[in-house]
Amino acid sequence: MTVITLTTDFGPGSHYSGQMKGVISSRAPQAAVVDLCHTIRRHDIAQAAMIIESSWRFFPAATIHIVVVDPGVGGGRQIILLTVDGHYFIVPDNGVVSRLPLAHPQARCFVVQRPDLYLNPLSRTFHGRDIMAPVAAHLASGGRPADYGPQISIRRLITLPPIPPPKFEAGRLNGVILDIDSFGNIITNIKAADLARLAGPPAARLNNHRITLMVESYEQAAPGGALLIINSSDALEIAVNQGRAADLLEAEIGMPVIIEANSKI
Amino acid sequence: MTVITLTTDFGPGSHYSGQMKGVISSRAPQAAVVDLCHTIRRHDIAQAAMIIESSWRFFPAATIHIVVVDPGVGGGRQIILLTVDGHYFIVPDNGVVSRLPLAHPQARCFVVQRPDLYLNPLSRTFHGRDIMAPVAAHLASGGRPADYGPQISIRRLITLPPIPPPKFEAGRLNGVILDIDSFGNIITNIKAADLARLAGPPAARLNNHRITLMVESYEQAAPGGALLIINSSDALEIAVNQGRAADLLEAEIGMPVIIEANSKI
Amino acid sequence: MTVITLTTDFGPGSHYSGQMKGVISSRAPQAAVVDLCHTIRRHDIAQAAMIIESSWRFFPAATIHIVVVDPGVGGGRQIILLTVDGHYFIVPDNGVVSRLPLAHPQARCFVVQRPDLYLNPLSRTFHGRDIMAPVAAHLASGGRPADYGPQISIRRLITLPPIPPPKFEAGRLNGVILDIDSFGNIITNIKAADLARLAGPPAARLNNHRITLMVESYEQAAPGGALLIINSSDALEIAVNQGRAADLLEAEIGMPVIIEANSKI
Repeated sequence: MTVITLTTDFGPGSHYSGQMKGVISSRAPQAAVVDLCHTIRRHDIAQAAMIIESSWRFFPAATIHIVVVDPGVGGGRQIILLTVDGHYFIVPDNGVVSRLPLAHPQARCFVVQRPDLYLNPLSRTFHGRDIMAPVAAHLASGGRPADYGPQISIRRLITLPPIPPPKFEAGRLNGVILDIDSFGNIITNIKAADLARLAGPPAARLNNHRITLMVESYEQAAPGGALLIINSSDALEIAVNQGRAADLLEAEIGMPVIIEANSKI
Repeated sequence: MTVITLTTDFGPGSHYSGQMKGVISSRAPQAAVVDLCHTIRRHDIAQAAMIIESSWRFFPAATIHIVVVDPGVGGGRQIILLTVDGHYFIVPDNGVVSRLPLAHPQARCFVVQRPDLYLNPLSRTFHGRDIMAPVAAHLASGGRPADYGPQISIRRLITLPPIPPPKFEAGRLNGVILDIDSFGNIITNIKAADLARLAGPPAARLNNHRITLMVESYEQAAPGGALLIINSSDALEIAVNQGRAADLLEAEIGMPVIIEANSKI
Repeated sequence: MTVITLTTDFGPGSHYSGQMKGVISSRAPQAAVVDLCHTIRRHDIAQAAMIIESSWRFFPAATIHIVVVDPGVGGGRQIILLTVDGHYFIVPDNGVVSRLPLAHPQARCFVVQRPDLYLNPLSRTFHGRDIMAPVAAHLASGGRPADYGPQISIRRLITLPPIPPPKFEAGRLNGVILDIDSFGNIITNIKAADLARLAGPPAARLNNHRITLMVESYEQAAPGGALLIINSSDALEIAVNQGRAADLLEAEIGMPVIIEANSKI
């Protein structure tokens, strides 16, 4: 039973994802549709790219991932079928696959050109339902990637600028806020391994706030207290026990975060 | 494998839909339950009717659609089983099926009267779980519509007033706002074909605003710019690229929208 | 086909539940994952306990229920596998199972200790994905409860204080608000049977408001009117037809509710 995942900016419970599930159940009744994420901020390609990168490996081989974060729908952007390490991605060519291991030697990319499979009539505003869902259903029913259009070089894909690793200068890590999750947790570009470069336990500076409590469990901070923790994607996260760190610390995506050794310990 | 869809005003992620899925998985483990829509505004029968109409045909033949937008639960309203063009609808008789093709020659309607199938105890406030889910599960397990109660004439169903098509007068289309979706897009009762009656490209007047940019892709408008587009249900939609049109244009359901030929082009 | 339910405080549509579904579909492709509830207030163990209690019996025998409301993740709290009346619960030992019939003679509890099954690397912040999901998948694939760790006495589980039944004094029921649902309905600890002790039809006092209209259907109250009703969990609920009772009556969880016989009828 092939798994088809949906990642969209429709919001949860939307009839837009409901309609996509209808198309897939009509064309590939044996496929299992799984909601991967429906809380992507509207048109936020960078967030979608990060969520997909952090999630795809939890699914079984041969899973087909559809991503409908598609501000360019109806315009000139292409729809592509990407295969990476045994998984399939059917997505608009707008950068949502930027964080996947595109340099993988078996990665292949095809431009989807199969109007015979699309819904008829074909809308201008909802290619997730009218193109991506039927192509995914066909692929789940035994198709091969080359069936859907000409292969192109991975290098021709539209990609987001790379996320720079934090800079280590003068004993400090200069990082940046990559995302804020639904709990208000602040997710940085600093990985667990980066912290080993510091001369002591980490202290974060963010927006005139200083956070020095590094924990292994949210409960180790007092309720309402800010903390540092390595999150479930191996990234340094700034959180507040039972609170919303992003609100309390007035944090926004893109803001700098400085990590220094906490000399006071 | 029969598909059973759920459309409710519970909001996404609610344990109320969770309990319905429990009942169905207990009674019809082979059925596939699909969330069609859980974002219907509370008790908004008109919105539910529109969402169902725009969505049901994407599902395979023999799909069973349950709609739990049921302000009259526990009162005198009946629960009906409607068959239209190979699909089944198990719903309260309150108008939610108004936009379906009820004049279809094979449309049939039955009043559900099978207390032997209902959950026991039977609550007064949640017939989606206690009546509709078990009846749907039984139907998915091989029942026939006539098994669930007496047939009644389709004409006896409670229906909403018809949505009038836009009036064409003095070279203008006089339309109305039918719905506002979760993106803040404004959905009108004007269809793509109606626009052909205009003497030129369309310009919309709404609430002292004038929108003249007709596009085939949201991105053709500047960020924050208002636009006209034919949406995925073939209706004229007023949207804002990367914004919420309904908020920016102070639009509400039921407001008039005038479309005239844009003489300035 | 084994059912695995998910109850979390992630909010609906989250990629956190998406990742859990990925793990389960990788390890137990034949299992059916069902979203039971994703709207638990963050870290609200008492609400999770109540939702689970009111929902688990709607699922078929042998269902595996995962609950990820886990403020102590990464700390010293254990993960347990509880079997009650043919159902399985894989949860943190923090009280979320408090409202289940733990005194059931066949209830058994095991401490989960199977690092060979956990995801590797194992995160500190997401044991729902890294421990509970793989253990549930293994159990769904034919495991037995004793396979996952040593049995412990049910009495050693962490439990919330019992919910006291309403006190009947001087002809009145002294109750309390247990929960407020997503509709703003106010759910009390007073059961339908308790009302029989009153000398007449019930009238509620809450926060200087008096509600006297006992109905069997929300529509029996005028729009905006407050009402009393027995809800789908057999509890006395204070609601407002087409409105949010908790907002209008300024109600909060834990507030007292007094029910007296309505002498004016």
